[in-house]
Amino acid sequence: MRRVAIALVHHPVLDARGDVVTSAFTNLDIHDLARSARTYGAADYFVVHPITAQRELVLRIQKHWEEGSSGKRIPARKDALSLVRAVSSLEEACGAFSKGEGRAAIEVWTTGAKDAADSSRALAMRDARERIESDGKPVMIVFGTSWGLAESVHAAADARLAPVKPHRTTGFNHLSVRAACAIVLDRLLGER
Amino acid sequence: MRRVAIALVHHPVLDARGDVVTSAFTNLDIHDLARSARTYGAADYFVVHPITAQRELVLRIQKHWEEGSSGKRIPARKDALSLVRAVSSLEEACGAFSKGEGRAAIEVWTTGAKDAADSSRALAMRDARERIESDGKPVMIVFGTSWGLAESVHAAADARLAPVKPHRTTGFNHLSVRAACAIVLDRLLGER
Repeated sequence: MRRVAIALVHHPVLDARGDVVTSAFTNLDIHDLARSARTYGAADYFVVHPITAQRELVLRIQKHWEEGSSGKRIPARKDALSLVRAVSSLEEACGAFSKGEGRAAIEVWTTGAKDAADSSRALAMRDARERIESDGKPVMIVFGTSWGLAESVHAAADARLAPVKPHRTTGFNHLSVRAACAIVLDRLLGER
Repeated sequence: MRRVAIALVHHPVLDARGDVVTSAFTNLDIHDLARSARTYGAADYFVVHPITAQRELVLRIQKHWEEGSSGKRIPARKDALSLVRAVSSLEEACGAFSKGEGRAAIEVWTTGAKDAADSSRALAMRDARERIESDGKPVMIVFGTSWGLAESVHAAADARLAPVKPHRTTGFNHLSVRAACAIVLDRLLGER
């Protein structure tokens, strides 16, 4: 089974009009994605933010739960939050996850609510699950905040996961990133 | 396919010591579970809280997104939040979901991070999915806040869903209710 990490990107992401922006981080994104990552056995959870003050705030939250009173109150939360690594870019995340071997030593898979425009790199969930279970490079699964990852992030990735969908179409697909990450991890790493 | 609703219970739930308590509602629980419910085609999302002031606050949030400036900014959120129904008890939720026909006209399935103590009513995800796809009573899927539903809620239910688990055990199972609800809906109502 391949080593898996998740990354939550705050730049470059899209806003409601489709412009590329930087989003502010959300406290519960740190907690929820860390808990899901820890439950499903991901090795790292990279919180990607280009602004130093935002990364410092992430570290402060992490420290509060690792060393402060909350960590004593809920020890399991400390375990989960120990996976969090605040980094300034997806490149930095890839460098850390590859343990210095570089971008080519790992695979990057992006996620989103829409199908890939370039279908040649689209990856069905079932195939993705099989790939993770067979030998190969460690996989970084990348999630976007706000209205999703900028096209440049998808373009630089090795594959783009198919969006999660209901069994019978509802014409609605606006999951929170907390929900989407949980579902993707369960589809790729959950018991069957 | 059966009609499905979800309910998020704030009383009776457990605290860290296992005592029965009432929890305060969390804003993002309203949003995230509504978005997951709407995406997967659930008919209603019952927010169960015995305290009037808490239910009024839920309604105020709902109104802000349905009629206020945020609804204009993110119209999809309005669609999702229109599923929310603030009720004082699970009994009231069952009454509303059964359209006045009463508790016996529907099935109540509870969820939690632990296996059922009474295994005779445990329901595997796969079986649950098949049951929903065949004819039968509408199903209410019940989630607990805080440290999970009180035993009395499980005892009064028709079935208790098996906890979601990773493929390879990590010894850790502390998903947020936002993540757990998303995963359960995807397992029961997601495309395969």
